[in-house]
Amino acid sequence: MILNILIGNHPADIATIIQGLPEEEARFVFGLLDADTASDVLVELDDVTTDKLVADLQHERLSEIVDEMDSDDATDLVADLPEEVAEKVLESIDQADSAEVKELLRHEEDSAGGIMALEFVTVWEGASVDQAVREIRAKADEVDEVYNVYAVDKSGKLVGFVPLKRLLLAKSSQKVSEIMRTDVVSVPIHMDQEEVANMFGRYNLVSMPVVDDSGQLVGRITVDDIVDVMNEEASEDIQKMAGIADEEGIRETSIMKISLGRLPWLLVAFGGQLFAVFVLRQFQVSLKQIVAATLFIPLMMAMGGNTGIQAATIIVRGIALGELGHGTTFKRLLREVRVSLFNGTVVGTLLFFAVGIFFNSQFGAVVSVSVLIVILNASIVGAGIPLILHKFRVDPAIATGPLVSTCNDILGVSIYLSLVTLSLRYF
Amino acid sequence: MILNILIGNHPADIATIIQGLPEEEARFVFGLLDADTASDVLVELDDVTTDKLVADLQHERLSEIVDEMDSDDATDLVADLPEEVAEKVLESIDQADSAEVKELLRHEEDSAGGIMALEFVTVWEGASVDQAVREIRAKADEVDEVYNVYAVDKSGKLVGFVPLKRLLLAKSSQKVSEIMRTDVVSVPIHMDQEEVANMFGRYNLVSMPVVDDSGQLVGRITVDDIVDVMNEEASEDIQKMAGIADEEGIRETSIMKISLGRLPWLLVAFGGQLFAVFVLRQFQVSLKQIVAATLFIPLMMAMGGNTGIQAATIIVRGIALGELGHGTTFKRLLREVRVSLFNGTVVGTLLFFAVGIFFNSQFGAVVSVSVLIVILNASIVGAGIPLILHKFRVDPAIATGPLVSTCNDILGVSIYLSLVTLSLRYF
Repeated sequence: MILNILIGNHPADIATIIQGLPEEEARFVFGLLDADTASDVLVELDDVTTDKLVADLQHERLSEIVDEMDSDDATDLVADLPEEVAEKVLESIDQADSAEVKELLRHEEDSAGGIMALEFVTVWEGASVDQAVREIRAKADEVDEVYNVYAVDKSGKLVGFVPLKRLLLAKSSQKVSEIMRTDVVSVPIHMDQEEVANMFGRYNLVSMPVVDDSGQLVGRITVDDIVDVMNEEASEDIQKMAGIADEEGIRETSIMKISLGRLPWLLVAFGGQLFAVFVLRQFQVSLKQIVAATLFIPLMMAMGGNTGIQAATIIVRGIALGELGHGTTFKRLLREVRVSLFNGTVVGTLLFFAVGIFFNSQFGAVVSVSVLIVILNASIVGAGIPLILHKFRVDPAIATGPLVSTCNDILGVSIYLSLVTLSLRYF
Repeated sequence: MILNILIGNHPADIATIIQGLPEEEARFVFGLLDADTASDVLVELDDVTTDKLVADLQHERLSEIVDEMDSDDATDLVADLPEEVAEKVLESIDQADSAEVKELLRHEEDSAGGIMALEFVTVWEGASVDQAVREIRAKADEVDEVYNVYAVDKSGKLVGFVPLKRLLLAKSSQKVSEIMRTDVVSVPIHMDQEEVANMFGRYNLVSMPVVDDSGQLVGRITVDDIVDVMNEEASEDIQKMAGIADEEGIRETSIMKISLGRLPWLLVAFGGQLFAVFVLRQFQVSLKQIVAATLFIPLMMAMGGNTGIQAATIIVRGIALGELGHGTTFKRLLREVRVSLFNGTVVGTLLFFAVGIFFNSQFGAVVSVSVLIVILNASIVGAGIPLILHKFRVDPAIATGPLVSTCNDILGVSIYLSLVTLSLRYF
């Protein structure tokens, strides 16, 4: 009954249904699926649900499921298994598949090699169109989606590709080398997945061949995996910017896991703010003299904080999308300075009048000049920290949130209270 | 000479070169390109460079370029032109193209209709494979990339699709209806582009047909456009979270435009912080009695701020990716509360010892209990505001940054100083 309802649905939809069920029922429903459907569904499940379901499976059933998967998905699943289970699975699945998975496991998870699959159609450039079609037929079961046939020379080096449209419209006696496109874009096996994703976007591709150091064709990456990579990388960047260290799934249920992902940057900020306590302490004399000065501490921090995050976000995103050209660091900084000069002047002027009305205009002058300098400083820190990190090849996303904010809080409060102290000397 | 260097490069690479040149030279080099190449390059250029180059073109040249474009790209370009130039271009290009562009201009830019193209191959379900291949041949020039042939019934309603692989492996006498897949995923013409992108990711598609209200096939969206949509939407969300109202390109050069995009949320935060000034003023008596209390204002704000952003980011991202299930609002809130209880206890304990050592343990107890409550409150505000906005169908990304921060700053300072004031009464 349940099975009748489920079958006919897209695997992604079955996955959604299973994710919505309590654990026991999810396990029961998943157990009803045949190995082929189960493998398609498993690929679509989120990590938390996958872990729960897989932990409970007999390794025979697991092997059946892995056998039905494409090499890249099988590798991802096996990589997440406990070592002994992984070994048992690798022993009991088809030997050729097992060899493929072992081969793919050698590559870094976040590299081209880590996301490529070994299912693709390749043909010798000297072959005929007819032979190419026969090759597709021979691999039709193994390779679900074929967009291009890759042409290689006698040594296995990638020399071109033939889109299926061309193959379909060519005469069967024509040679592959006559109809192939030679402007083939390929990626080296070690390339980082974020760069690979940027190349898909840049060149509008649906699949891309992967080559090893000698130019041999070794795998294929398809755009559906790239869409996942893009979502993953964007989520990772957004979370890092917010000071979340480990990638946190929206369906994560372990409070401990969530806490431990968020605590590190919270503690970095905590340390920075303890330092701010001692900075503020230096100004205690001034604060006692003008208690009104205390009232504007949050405002200074917030204006610096917001400006810094705005500047940092633009830089971090530009770097992530590969849109920040070389040698533009200084130009970028200058632009941020000019923007913050403008915004700082607007905010400073408004503040001057607000304070002038409710306190007095002398104090108004001090806080409005302060806010301008705080905003100016925050934009330099906000844009500068990610640019510097990027120069030293550290992912700038980690800097945007707590690091930029904490620096700006401490600097902002120091600038403001120094100016207040100075003004006490002259007024 | 320059042309020889450029030609043979991928249009995306030519675009990068042009973007790196000073304005005059960029215009000169772009002028050297033939209309076909120029149209491919223009599609790859960022908005700022496109605007500069297009503003300067004769409308005859512009018409030539538009004539070479696919209908979706032509529409995007024409939509950005000044009205009178757009009219001139629409008059002088091929009449059929002009009708297509006018048709596409009627759809919302951010909807399925706004990103679809009218170039696709369609065939009657009763036709033979041979006829389908002939249809592809007839449209080969017009439709660059063919992944699937769409099958329609006599009334033009979409009933299935044939991947090229199937077409290639079928016998030419077979009927389309015999080999077509009927599990076709299509999107309605009004669907928001972010939802369309999520569907591409969900169902692992490379192209998707668009249907009107009556189920008629009216267009096709390809994954390369979806990759752009995903980057655009992720950038937009990230920027909104940072309090940047208008989408700001990394290559934007107008200081005025950048400032005006960032000022609105800066001013919202400014208004909130002015309010905070008056809140703090209520506590002036307490602040005068314990000047040490002042020193911890930045720390309270920062702990609340960081916690709020962490919670809000997870919720906003989950909503954007369509991963947040229905009816899970309360569960999500509860999870955030539990996480913040844990993190707040860790931070509170550390603070208790730090303050106990440098000040006294009575005051240490007050600030550590305060920081726990501030963190707890911040997580509820951080998760709650986007969840509530989502319920009322407002994009929750706008809330993450300045809105959550400002609320948390005001509430955090109020909670902290209320507790300090209370403690003065009892100690």
